[in-house]
Amino acid sequence: MRVLSGIQPSGSLHLGNYFGMMKKMIDYQQHHELFCFIANYHAMTSVPDGKALATGTLEAAANFLALGLDPDKSVFWVQSDVPEVQELTWVLSNFTPMGLLERCHSYKDKVAKGIAPNHGLFAYPVLMAADILLFGGELVPVGKDQKQHLEVARDIAIKFNNEHGEVLVVPEPDIDDEIATIPGLDGQKMSKSYKNTIDLFLEEKALRKQVMRIVTDPTPVEDPKDPDKCNVFQIYRLFLDKQQEQALRQRYLAGGLGYGEVKQELFETVRDFFAPFAQRREELLGDKDQLRAILAEGAQKARGAASKIMRKVRKKTGLAY
Amino acid sequence: MRVLSGIQPSGSLHLGNYFGMMKKMIDYQQHHELFCFIANYHAMTSVPDGKALATGTLEAAANFLALGLDPDKSVFWVQSDVPEVQELTWVLSNFTPMGLLERCHSYKDKVAKGIAPNHGLFAYPVLMAADILLFGGELVPVGKDQKQHLEVARDIAIKFNNEHGEVLVVPEPDIDDEIATIPGLDGQKMSKSYKNTIDLFLEEKALRKQVMRIVTDPTPVEDPKDPDKCNVFQIYRLFLDKQQEQALRQRYLAGGLGYGEVKQELFETVRDFFAPFAQRREELLGDKDQLRAILAEGAQKARGAASKIMRKVRKKTGLAY
Repeated sequence: MRVLSGIQPSGSLHLGNYFGMMKKMIDYQQHHELFCFIANYHAMTSVPDGKALATGTLEAAANFLALGLDPDKSVFWVQSDVPEVQELTWVLSNFTPMGLLERCHSYKDKVAKGIAPNHGLFAYPVLMAADILLFGGELVPVGKDQKQHLEVARDIAIKFNNEHGEVLVVPEPDIDDEIATIPGLDGQKMSKSYKNTIDLFLEEKALRKQVMRIVTDPTPVEDPKDPDKCNVFQIYRLFLDKQQEQALRQRYLAGGLGYGEVKQELFETVRDFFAPFAQRREELLGDKDQLRAILAEGAQKARGAASKIMRKVRKKTGLAY
Repeated sequence: MRVLSGIQPSGSLHLGNYFGMMKKMIDYQQHHELFCFIANYHAMTSVPDGKALATGTLEAAANFLALGLDPDKSVFWVQSDVPEVQELTWVLSNFTPMGLLERCHSYKDKVAKGIAPNHGLFAYPVLMAADILLFGGELVPVGKDQKQHLEVARDIAIKFNNEHGEVLVVPEPDIDDEIATIPGLDGQKMSKSYKNTIDLFLEEKALRKQVMRIVTDPTPVEDPKDPDKCNVFQIYRLFLDKQQEQALRQRYLAGGLGYGEVKQELFETVRDFFAPFAQRREELLGDKDQLRAILAEGAQKARGAASKIMRKVRKKTGLAY
């Protein structure tokens, strides 16, 4: 199966991103053909600052590569390095009824909030359709918020194929409802906007500070504690296998465990778990030319796949004359 | 001054196209730097048939070259051979308020007629803005119906420049109100939709038939006639200099001129005027590989101009990382 996924070029990552999405993506490499791109065109709808976008793009690339995305196993590129996607976007626009875009929640929500939207935001789902269809993506992992956009991509592909024959692969969504929400410092979903994150690739001191801020209840040290109600435990278990989790659970239930002590352990665990990744990330960001070379190679592979489909599209639509 | 103009890839042309637009365009070459392209991306909004679009593209190219567009003096290319225009369209979309597009008459008119429009039609003005801004077009000849779209292009360029500095040239419209409407066979404006055209590059027999269909009044041969009220005269004068026009006028006023006679003269004049162009057109369409080579060379020149502007745009917006 060809799995296709785009990631926003945001430089800063937290445990929620890693366990909620990135790890899953990296695991795909074992059994699927992974096509993964950094969505810098999409990011333009929300990042007007050019320098921030350029830096974010390189950092996102370094993050993914450091965390285990293997550019030899997978196709990994920056969206704008395969600009054919914009040509396909135009072609698909002529198979996209306005009503389809007008009904998209993400657009309607912005308008409802009184935001005067730009055309980029409105046209976003057509670009997303092109992202998928240009590479013949068969399976697309999407969160619930992106489910409708995948439906749009399917509708467009079907309309195009009705006119021109079976040129485009109609993609299937891979909606993973099982992924547990990763809790933040305060027990809510870990999210940048709630300011309750534990960030990846922090300095030791800053990381320790974040972990120490995890909200706990005032149960005295000597009392038994309920691990299922403890934010520290809920985060800690992400790093533990079944046996280790069971052992920690016992220590909670037995009493005598101080939150400060278990937070210190968690801090060390997070630090040690990401230490090799952080080092690899530093190396990658320390030699940006090499990083760009890795991305250029990925773009070349992606273009190869894209050109096969674009050749058919250009022929069928009469752009090839 | 850099003049920029796009033409629809329609294979069939009539006198109204030639005297109303094409001749003017070809004359521009004398004193301006002309950038002229065949708008095959745009045509997709109205030509769903791929074969028709491909054929129309080559025929339009042959028409323009045959009629005097000089690919050494000017830059002449097929729009989709410089696909960077679609990348710029996306960039500009993020500087295009939805309201700007929603207010466009050409879109509103279609909706008012009950046509369920595609996104291509809605996004058309953004692509047109990119067409102009990608090549730094300073002067854009537009008919009254395209005046609003040029305003949109100006608005978008100004918004982009406000954010990123003076990167894009804000184009000026060249609205020629003086161009007389070319009358058709029935005296209405010559137009394909009125079926009142005299077509270019017709077989002799078919051409004569069209000219003979020009509507005239029933004044007897021997009577004096008013040239200003005669459709034959109004079309004939397009081919005459002042002196020749004066002489024909005298023949009308003197009486004794039969409409059949003057129609026959007009037919011969049209035939002879376009004969060398028709021959050149046949040659061009007879060697399509050479025609494609001319267009490929034009595209290369156009890409050179485009890449200068895209380099700046990509740097400013952070697409270059």
